[in-house]
Amino acid sequence: MAGLSVGAAQPRSRRGLGPDVTASAPRLVVLTGADPDLPPPNLAALEEGAAISVVTPGEHLELVATADVVFVWDTTFPDVDGVLRDATGASWIHVAAAGLDAVLSPRLRHLTATVTTAAGIQDEDIAEFVVAAALFHVKEFELAARQQEERLWREISVRRLAGSTCLVIGCGGIGRATARKLRALGVHVRGAGRTARTDDPDFDRVASSAEMTSELRWADLVVVAAPLTARTAGIVDAAALAAMKSDAHLVNVARGGCVVEADLVDAVQRGVIGGATLDVTVDEPLGPDSPLWAVPGIRVNPHSSANTPDLLDAFRDRFVDDFHRWKTGTLAGKTVADHVQEIWGRLGESNPRPSHYE
Amino acid sequence: MAGLSVGAAQPRSRRGLGPDVTASAPRLVVLTGADPDLPPPNLAALEEGAAISVVTPGEHLELVATADVVFVWDTTFPDVDGVLRDATGASWIHVAAAGLDAVLSPRLRHLTATVTTAAGIQDEDIAEFVVAAALFHVKEFELAARQQEERLWREISVRRLAGSTCLVIGCGGIGRATARKLRALGVHVRGAGRTARTDDPDFDRVASSAEMTSELRWADLVVVAAPLTARTAGIVDAAALAAMKSDAHLVNVARGGCVVEADLVDAVQRGVIGGATLDVTVDEPLGPDSPLWAVPGIRVNPHSSANTPDLLDAFRDRFVDDFHRWKTGTLAGKTVADHVQEIWGRLGESNPRPSHYE
Repeated sequence: MAGLSVGAAQPRSRRGLGPDVTASAPRLVVLTGADPDLPPPNLAALEEGAAISVVTPGEHLELVATADVVFVWDTTFPDVDGVLRDATGASWIHVAAAGLDAVLSPRLRHLTATVTTAAGIQDEDIAEFVVAAALFHVKEFELAARQQEERLWREISVRRLAGSTCLVIGCGGIGRATARKLRALGVHVRGAGRTARTDDPDFDRVASSAEMTSELRWADLVVVAAPLTARTAGIVDAAALAAMKSDAHLVNVARGGCVVEADLVDAVQRGVIGGATLDVTVDEPLGPDSPLWAVPGIRVNPHSSANTPDLLDAFRDRFVDDFHRWKTGTLAGKTVADHVQEIWGRLGESNPRPSHYE
Repeated sequence: MAGLSVGAAQPRSRRGLGPDVTASAPRLVVLTGADPDLPPPNLAALEEGAAISVVTPGEHLELVATADVVFVWDTTFPDVDGVLRDATGASWIHVAAAGLDAVLSPRLRHLTATVTTAAGIQDEDIAEFVVAAALFHVKEFELAARQQEERLWREISVRRLAGSTCLVIGCGGIGRATARKLRALGVHVRGAGRTARTDDPDFDRVASSAEMTSELRWADLVVVAAPLTARTAGIVDAAALAAMKSDAHLVNVARGGCVVEADLVDAVQRGVIGGATLDVTVDEPLGPDSPLWAVPGIRVNPHSSANTPDLLDAFRDRFVDDFHRWKTGTLAGKTVADHVQEIWGRLGESNPRPSHYE
């Protein structure tokens, strides 16, 4: 085990083994370091329970092959699915994100490790962001800012959020937290999910994907909060946008790939919908040449809706909690192979990401 | 009565009398027309029950002296308190606004007419505006807009509204509606009112004005929602601002005169507080030379927080409802003299507005 520890020669990596780590301590590999602004996690709490190796892009990747546990701290780690391909000995992979789309790919169908994520941690903050975006839109704060720039006092006509209608696409934790906050402000909220139902505690009703067009016609606000999968990739396309009200507001807090960006640009420019707020884009960081930046009515937020000061600590704490569950055999979760099937369906290795994601 | 009707020679005024108005029909004078964007109210519902005269600035003001009822539709009517001074025969004056500060003055102490207002109509919309402003601030939407302008994708650190603290100055309808919405989003909300109490349904507790300094120290968000009176004029001054947290956000949805604007400009510029959102200013419209326009961290909104499409109809409907109460002797309300005493206290005619208001 000692041979696996990462030495001081690697800048930005944590020293590996605590003094009491025995040869039987589980081998934990942490993938980090692609994002220079993301400090590696402080795993001091685990030092006596694991042999920790911090792996940065291109360095010591061979450690993955002998890992018992892989902790994907930086989900932008280059070729992350290629790296994980060798994690055949790992019984657990933890991803510090709510979604797995950026990390798992059809290339990982052979892995049987249990997968856990940070899902849930960001729900309330992302929901607050949606409410903020919804209110920004109906209260015409963009127009107010423009008038302030011009030192122009001219009354503005605003709309009321209470009594308006919202369709949330995706009935997971983020969608539910969003629905609860909007309902608390008097909004009528429906969901779109896999199966229709009328007895959901968080939604007036849930429509199936097949009914989505009529629900899109009904909604003043459409929130995308679904994981990116083969089903949801490009779900908001020209046809979906055409079904929406001409003053509808689209908010995407899921993944850029859920929306066909060219269709959105066209729809907002032609007044097919009223506007859009995007916390996510297909390419992140969004390059300066993207047309999204300069369409009046499209607001781009740099995937920061949940960037509260305690977020990284919460990510770390979730992993530490799950580590104790893993050690005691109480960790629950689907396998990599199950997730790959769920996310990408029949897409094969030759097409490791749905086209909208590329 | 027929002689009181306003003829077609007056543009923008409604024709007065319906065919069935008798000599005993009450004489209703409507003050309107100062604001060219404000259409006179459609009072068709009253045509058979009142002799309606629509008075515009400088024209037919003599009708006020013989009015049974005065309806102040446009509260920016020039010299409105001077005009109302002659309404000695009126038993009822209705003001289409939530507050009376702009209409009543110490010059009207001799009037015994019952006063009613549109208080309540705008509560929920103004409360939504406060929530919108609060979220705009903590989610750093101003920074995001600036980055979008520069086509810059750089992650932004945001704050969480849930769990934060808010002090609402003024526990009337607007303050209460604001408290309810913020609490629904997880904010801890206290009030500041005339008397301290702990059993208020809408506030964690209500502090008296004497305790306000310690409450200001506690609050992340300070909302001014009090009527402008001799007590509240300039209540947010340099001393109050100095008591606030350095990242506190001040939102004023009451009257401009509640805040000492020069002190606010200084406080935001020097980082004494984090920022301010003003839906109201001392001078409205705010002139292009005001320093408020150009202080980073101060957002100016043109007194539009409740400007929903149905606002004018709601103002009209409130008056019509009250008219029926008045006719049947069931209208309740304080007199002009009582209000003047409450608003301006001992201020005499020589000082018809508190200094902050001038």
